Amino acid sequence: MRLQDIRITDAFWSSFTRLVRETVIPYQWEALNDRVPEAEPSHAIRNFRIAAGLEQGEFGGMVFQDSDVAKWLEAVGHSLAAHPDPELERIADGVIDLVVAAQHEDGYLNTYFTVKEPGRRWTNLTDCHELYCAGHMIEAAVAYYEATGKRKLLDAMCRFADHIDSVFGPENGKLRGYDGHQEIELALVKLYRVTGNERYLRLSRFFIEERGKKPNFFLQEFGRPGYERHWEGVKGKQPDLAYHQAHEPVREQDTAVGHAVRAVYMYTAMADLARELGDASLAEACRRLWRNVTRRQMYITGGIGSTHHGEAFTFDYDLPNDTVYAETCASIGLIFFANRMLRLEPKAEYADVMERALYNIVIGSMAADGKHYFYVNPLEVWPDACRRNPGKHHVKPVRQRWFGCACCPPNLARLIASLGGYIWTREEDALYAHLYIGNETAVSFGGRNVRVRMTSDLPWEGAASLSVETESPVRFRLALRLPAWMSGEACIRLNGDVVRGAPVRDGYLMIDREWRSGDTVDLSFPMEAEWMEAHPDVRADRGKVALVRGPLVYCFEEADNGPLIAALSVSPDAKPEVRMEDTPWGRIGLIRAEGWRDDPQPFGDELYRRARKAKRPVTLTAIPYYLWGNRGEGEMAVWIRSAD
Amino acid sequence: MRLQDIRITDAFWSSFTRLVRETVIPYQWEALNDRVPEAEPSHAIRNFRIAAGLEQGEFGGMVFQDSDVAKWLEAVGHSLAAHPDPELERIADGVIDLVVAAQHEDGYLNTYFTVKEPGRRWTNLTDCHELYCAGHMIEAAVAYYEATGKRKLLDAMCRFADHIDSVFGPENGKLRGYDGHQEIELALVKLYRVTGNERYLRLSRFFIEERGKKPNFFLQEFGRPGYERHWEGVKGKQPDLAYHQAHEPVREQDTAVGHAVRAVYMYTAMADLARELGDASLAEACRRLWRNVTRRQMYITGGIGSTHHGEAFTFDYDLPNDTVYAETCASIGLIFFANRMLRLEPKAEYADVMERALYNIVIGSMAADGKHYFYVNPLEVWPDACRRNPGKHHVKPVRQRWFGCACCPPNLARLIASLGGYIWTREEDALYAHLYIGNETAVSFGGRNVRVRMTSDLPWEGAASLSVETESPVRFRLALRLPAWMSGEACIRLNGDVVRGAPVRDGYLMIDREWRSGDTVDLSFPMEAEWMEAHPDVRADRGKVALVRGPLVYCFEEADNGPLIAALSVSPDAKPEVRMEDTPWGRIGLIRAEGWRDDPQPFGDELYRRARKAKRPVTLTAIPYYLWGNRGEGEMAVWIRSAD
Repeated sequence: MRLQDIRITDAFWSSFTRLVRETVIPYQWEALNDRVPEAEPSHAIRNFRIAAGLEQGEFGGMVFQDSDVAKWLEAVGHSLAAHPDPELERIADGVIDLVVAAQHEDGYLNTYFTVKEPGRRWTNLTDCHELYCAGHMIEAAVAYYEATGKRKLLDAMCRFADHIDSVFGPENGKLRGYDGHQEIELALVKLYRVTGNERYLRLSRFFIEERGKKPNFFLQEFGRPGYERHWEGVKGKQPDLAYHQAHEPVREQDTAVGHAVRAVYMYTAMADLARELGDASLAEACRRLWRNVTRRQMYITGGIGSTHHGEAFTFDYDLPNDTVYAETCASIGLIFFANRMLRLEPKAEYADVMERALYNIVIGSMAADGKHYFYVNPLEVWPDACRRNPGKHHVKPVRQRWFGCACCPPNLARLIASLGGYIWTREEDALYAHLYIGNETAVSFGGRNVRVRMTSDLPWEGAASLSVETESPVRFRLALRLPAWMSGEACIRLNGDVVRGAPVRDGYLMIDREWRSGDTVDLSFPMEAEWMEAHPDVRADRGKVALVRGPLVYCFEEADNGPLIAALSVSPDAKPEVRMEDTPWGRIGLIRAEGWRDDPQPFGDELYRRARKAKRPVTLTAIPYYLWGNRGEGEMAVWIRSAD
Repeated sequence: MRLQDIRITDAFWSSFTRLVRETVIPYQWEALNDRVPEAEPSHAIRNFRIAAGLEQGEFGGMVFQDSDVAKWLEAVGHSLAAHPDPELERIADGVIDLVVAAQHEDGYLNTYFTVKEPGRRWTNLTDCHELYCAGHMIEAAVAYYEATGKRKLLDAMCRFADHIDSVFGPENGKLRGYDGHQEIELALVKLYRVTGNERYLRLSRFFIEERGKKPNFFLQEFGRPGYERHWEGVKGKQPDLAYHQAHEPVREQDTAVGHAVRAVYMYTAMADLARELGDASLAEACRRLWRNVTRRQMYITGGIGSTHHGEAFTFDYDLPNDTVYAETCASIGLIFFANRMLRLEPKAEYADVMERALYNIVIGSMAADGKHYFYVNPLEVWPDACRRNPGKHHVKPVRQRWFGCACCPPNLARLIASLGGYIWTREEDALYAHLYIGNETAVSFGGRNVRVRMTSDLPWEGAASLSVETESPVRFRLALRLPAWMSGEACIRLNGDVVRGAPVRDGYLMIDREWRSGDTVDLSFPMEAEWMEAHPDVRADRGKVALVRGPLVYCFEEADNGPLIAALSVSPDAKPEVRMEDTPWGRIGLIRAEGWRDDPQPFGDELYRRARKAKRPVTLTAIPYYLWGNRGEGEMAVWIRSAD
């Protein structure tokens, strides 16, 4: 299904897609051009100008700064697919001219190595992100081509990929290496799909197969005369193979380790390859890793990465709420992974996780102004500690303007701009609805065009409906995800009549029929606010509960509940009450629940004293997690004490 | 009161003082000589041999490695004071010969600068610990002289101090500087007391007064041509003044900041100077800092330092239990500070904190074999997380053999070896009993000798008694601390009769009388096991209680309570039951309490699910905190959930 065939019409999501289109993309364009006051300069466009010989100067920013331009271009491509915008397209064409001007004769493209370290191409794969940047530019090229039909960047990136293919591979004289940051692997699959050139699929497969084999490429690279680590903190240190998921062959990995973004980007490519190649053991590795990530190492918000040290996974059930990392990019990568697993085998659990990450981490990471972002998405915040306890310096209590390492905002932009691509997948004779986000989509079965219109009341009500338009009756299976969050049985009506006895497979209710214009399916999902508990081995959540309603996780903020959120408790028997209210962020479902606040006799100057029971009833107010941190600095918690 | 006049006879403490004498001091001697297999080599003695020209080689170990030899010598001095040991004294004399042989003509002594950076003396006060090492060797010299009457090291250290005085000071041409790690300041006060030379007191005062003044010495040093930071992590970085407590004049400081050991060593010297100089505003600064440390930033165990980043204080009420630092040396420094405050003004709160740190952190940091140590003293441990979450790598679930930075074990040795010095203080006409540790001490009032014998049942029973022996009746005030941990009124008997109406001042009950031989005071302190709560602003302890009995804090270990300590809860109404039991560590007071264990329906493979109340009654077993981590790796917690 092509992105331009899907138009988001959802009441809830349109505000985000519009924000990305009207504010984020233009704002990030300013940022890439160092025109945002108060933000650290990006240098990214300027680097391309210098590499293209259009300007004199030094390379600026991170070694992977090129990727910000690529992600922005990809977001523009996605945006143009559904929303043509000649002025934006003109700017993008100019950027593409610039990118291609910075490309070398042989196809190579990387402004860092062109400007700062000429002659040292491919000498530090571990640290320097050359293939990572290549991957992002390939993704941009594919998106831009699909949206506009323009081949300039696509052709340039094919030349680059051909060049990479001439450098890397199993053949004698080629580098048997791979990048320190996975990304090229999934990009090459996209390039293969759009060009049909199997060379790219083979190259992606090579990178995946080679990774983690012995002798280890990173260790060999490290041992080469003249080799020096790029990053300050690791100078002279042997690469941490697990950080790069290169500690063992990927096919043998069963636990998510290392840098979370690298990991999920790799898993995404693995799922792509498993499908393209029909590779059963690679698919099985994907399932194992999926289970490990989502059933052992994922926050209830869909965040992943338990530590800021290496922005990494730690180990099963280690999910601290306050020192958490849960990088925005990692959840975006998890959504990619889920999306690819759905293409490999449609199972609702993939969509459940995808939805959780989207409705909580992804939209929560961006402010309503589209100009402030969370990089880290904590589940518990004490603003003083963020400032004054160095172990929490990475956690910010309010969204920040732009980052020196600005990976998250443009990643978010490209995801939201391509949101339509995550709602559906189709198989030969079936259309799968994974997300209930209002949209209109065009699809065809047996050569006959079908328009499907979906409306949705999510996330505030558990209701959605689909209607079909078609020139003539057309047979296909409509597979409707039954969300895991339902508090009871779903009620599905077809043209007003309750559907009974329809088969449910892997969490999808199947309606297999000859569809006619005007056919309507109404879905009603019981959606109550519910207290959730974590697996007992999650020490951090012992004795605590979290409030969830439908796809939304809720949180408790100081702005509503007063300071010292840690003093609040609830009984899981307390029935939370949902009420739609007008707020500064529009009409929002707030939740209130009866609970308690510790109410000790005032402490004097002492720090410890004999314990006394003392609590008073209070009404707690919870807001959707995605809205936290919008009222200045204050305490916040997702998990609160269960008084049972 | 001289150390040789006090002999520890306490049933509980004798085992520790004996362990230090018979095992720790000999073991550390082996370690200093690089003869402990499996431990990182110390290099410390070898460095002195090289500096003395007795051996060829490179300097090894930390820049402050000399201080380990100094602390060991100090411990030996203290040990010899009460327990003459000709063989040990012979070894120590040899070390002293070696130290003096490594001293320069002009009095300077530091093997790092002698061997590794000759010509660069006093060029990096911020990082290089020259005055710190000097301070420790001065403390050793004073202790050794007081114990043995031998002046060789004392005279050498006077020459060194004279040399330092010729280099540092307010006069033109001298360095207006001070050390990055406070220690010389308190050592110079000791040197002044033993020599009577006011030059040393003035020099100490200079270092204290100068610190934190503008223009800042560390910043000036940093700006000097050719200056380079010593430590890898801070190369090129401007010194963090607060880390060194040099961010503002010490007299103006009211919040404990920066490296915890540096801070409390400095406060100790400040209290010393406040007393020696009768300096009221310095005394007031000491009181403010004491209150901040002990009423805002101290763990219930007497541990201080909430973060391993810089081994430092963070801010008021920030006392995380799992990412805690609570370095052993910091609690030792807190004991020094308390001791000096008691000399400045006897108030029981100083002794209460001193006792808490001694009975929990200090003895808990050492294994029963005297050869394994904790550097970090956590209040909550999940061994997997110590290994696999980098934010907790500094926390070790079992005591370690010896450390590359081996500050804590020799610091512990010198403290325990001088334990007698912390029990009493005397004023003109009064003898203050701060700690109830069985001992015999000789003291004199009005020229008449008195022997006081104290016996104590602490920490297992709240009972102690004192008896007086004297040639003829002698008048003095006996001031008896009434511990803050008492669960009711103390009962004090004098020669069998309950003492009524005796004045209590600052937590001390005063018995002012003419004492005769055979007079006996029996003290009975109600001592129940009690659940304690922390100040509400301590987020980490919200909804939790800790079990304390007398000076001992208790903890819950996996070895007694099964895995998942976080699943345990108690009601503070539950009456804990104390029972003396024979254990591998001798006869110990264990505590049992009725509580609950979360008992959820078994989880499947899911990570989150609807919360259900489910707990079953269990009997919890708590052991004294000082014994934790002695049964292999396992979970441990001091604070457990309060189910109210």
